[in-house]
Amino acid sequence: MAEKDTNLLVYGVFSERSDVEQRAGLTPDIVTRLKRSGVTCLVEAGVGLGAHFMDEDYEKAGARVASRDDILAEADAVAFVGRPSTELLSAFRPGTWVFGAFNSFTDDAYVASLKEAHLNAVAMERLPRQLSAAQSMDEMTSQNSVAGYKAVLKAADAYGAFFPMMTTAAGTIRPAKVLVLGAGIAGLQAIGTAKRLGAVVTGYDVRPAAQSEVESLGAKFLDLGDEVRAVMAGQGEGGYARALTDEERALQQAAVDTKAAEFDVIITTAQVPGRKPPVLLTQAGVMGMKRGAVIVDCASSDFGGNVEGSVPRESVVTDGGVSILGMPDLASGVATTASQQIARNLADTLLHFLRDGALSVDADDEIDAAMVVAQEGETHA
Amino acid sequence: MAEKDTNLLVYGVFSERSDVEQRAGLTPDIVTRLKRSGVTCLVEAGVGLGAHFMDEDYEKAGARVASRDDILAEADAVAFVGRPSTELLSAFRPGTWVFGAFNSFTDDAYVASLKEAHLNAVAMERLPRQLSAAQSMDEMTSQNSVAGYKAVLKAADAYGAFFPMMTTAAGTIRPAKVLVLGAGIAGLQAIGTAKRLGAVVTGYDVRPAAQSEVESLGAKFLDLGDEVRAVMAGQGEGGYARALTDEERALQQAAVDTKAAEFDVIITTAQVPGRKPPVLLTQAGVMGMKRGAVIVDCASSDFGGNVEGSVPRESVVTDGGVSILGMPDLASGVATTASQQIARNLADTLLHFLRDGALSVDADDEIDAAMVVAQEGETHA
Repeated sequence: MAEKDTNLLVYGVFSERSDVEQRAGLTPDIVTRLKRSGVTCLVEAGVGLGAHFMDEDYEKAGARVASRDDILAEADAVAFVGRPSTELLSAFRPGTWVFGAFNSFTDDAYVASLKEAHLNAVAMERLPRQLSAAQSMDEMTSQNSVAGYKAVLKAADAYGAFFPMMTTAAGTIRPAKVLVLGAGIAGLQAIGTAKRLGAVVTGYDVRPAAQSEVESLGAKFLDLGDEVRAVMAGQGEGGYARALTDEERALQQAAVDTKAAEFDVIITTAQVPGRKPPVLLTQAGVMGMKRGAVIVDCASSDFGGNVEGSVPRESVVTDGGVSILGMPDLASGVATTASQQIARNLADTLLHFLRDGALSVDADDEIDAAMVVAQEGETHA
Repeated sequence: MAEKDTNLLVYGVFSERSDVEQRAGLTPDIVTRLKRSGVTCLVEAGVGLGAHFMDEDYEKAGARVASRDDILAEADAVAFVGRPSTELLSAFRPGTWVFGAFNSFTDDAYVASLKEAHLNAVAMERLPRQLSAAQSMDEMTSQNSVAGYKAVLKAADAYGAFFPMMTTAAGTIRPAKVLVLGAGIAGLQAIGTAKRLGAVVTGYDVRPAAQSEVESLGAKFLDLGDEVRAVMAGQGEGGYARALTDEERALQQAAVDTKAAEFDVIITTAQVPGRKPPVLLTQAGVMGMKRGAVIVDCASSDFGGNVEGSVPRESVVTDGGVSILGMPDLASGVATTASQQIARNLADTLLHFLRDGALSVDADDEIDAAMVVAQEGETHA
């Protein structure tokens, strides 16, 4: 307790390791950083093992390695890559601040649990990421970027031929043709990585702004033909995107499915936080692809993915010899980089709420207004 | 038989698929090529499945899909990615030409079996690859190139952080430091591929000529310090490499082991056909590496590899958290490209021996003199 007196805040991070999660919410470099801001870090033993950080590494950086019970007893704030179980929630002291990805857009019951436990809860998925002050807190961006990189490594490893073009004594090897569907953070990182590896890369996204982003990376934008182009151009009229009609959507989907046949590798990256991922490639599109083609579906989930027939964490090979890799945990697969990034995002979010030596909510702050989904005071309502 | 009359030669290729072999000795594009030279191709059913070529693909290209017995009965020449079992050898008609990788430098018993079966045997491992006429037959070059590419994909996938440097809102991600030991074909391809992916790459080889080759790819050459440099420079004096003394070798090895600690990823690629692979990294070198470091040993075999502690086809994690991936089958892991290349190498070798409408040995030809390890005539001796 003497320790706490000289510090503003005790920040606790639990081990979240599981079969599908190797990331840690805190890394040794961030411990040092937080210490300079007066924050004492408590980490659960083994917190960083999946990301190759040992307990000693945290201790050397100035953290204390503790048991789960110690953290529950002492921490003023706790942070998660994912979210704590509702069981763990109820073990927190009332008034504890919890930072994590709560899936709060769709999971009302979980938000209710946060409130019932009298916690202050900051939902990372609600970050108003368009604000420049929010950029270093943006774990969706940092983790999707890691996922886009890893998706290309997985695709290249699963594909039976070279990505780059090579001229050899035994003939020229043509480069792989890679299509990236969805040109958000993950998609743009996938485009960049596939280009690095020497593939001929095409990108696509329904957002009208995507074309220039894709082309700025030196990739081609998927040409769906005059008819679809006219529809998509109309969508952007007046500066705002409008939703496509069912007919327009079907026309566009059929065009994508037809074009899929031209590619050796397709990487799909369209995730909408808290919603079922949109289908970007139907069974018809998959069936039209060449034997040996590889699809990596980054949005694969139990509720479906971007690709019809994708199964999360499995590699499905169709009768036509097309491999569909359902890969929802890609960021965890680059655990060191992903942890370093998300630890920084979480710590910067913590520091945003640290005002005059204590954590508080400023109702007038845009970030606070967006992210705080439970507040100790309001739970009495 | 009518078919054979109109053709010079029947060329048979068997399926060699196994747990560790997905390559095929013939691909559909080469069938077409051989047909133009008057060669009829017979392929065993399923020969190309591991490389995503279907029996129909071969048929469309002009091959006949046949049973093993049909090929044994009809083929004038047969070709292998590896080598036929001695059981299969004895089933060939006397006088059949066999092209394959026989391991003839060390396996005298196998060569004896080739002779006993009254076969004409062309050992691909004996190609005099320095001759320009031999380049398109050079399967060691083509397959090692594929292996070097794949080694980097495996290393990047196993490594927990990014290969490229990235500047993000959550801080700069430093690039991976990759060391490639052995700068032959596989090593140079690994250097090129790791550089493509954005890593900071260093190469090393005991051959004095390697430095300029490594540097020409934009990689650094490993600096082992003045003392070792003086020894290695002496080695090249007079234009010829001399063998290092035991003391010099130990000095050099200790320097490599010490330097290893600076790298995140090490890829070792030194294979000497028919000999035990040289140790390039000892246990001391492995122990000095950082937790999370990844080693890919392309020379891993049952007789040891380039890295002490590597086990073929396994991923060993040391107490210090270093992963050693023993990967002897890397070319097979890029089965389509590897098959296309080796099929071309084998076919060009076949065509080299096809003179005036029949296969023959020209004792005055440098390639023939080097590669023919068994000849029907001499077996009567």
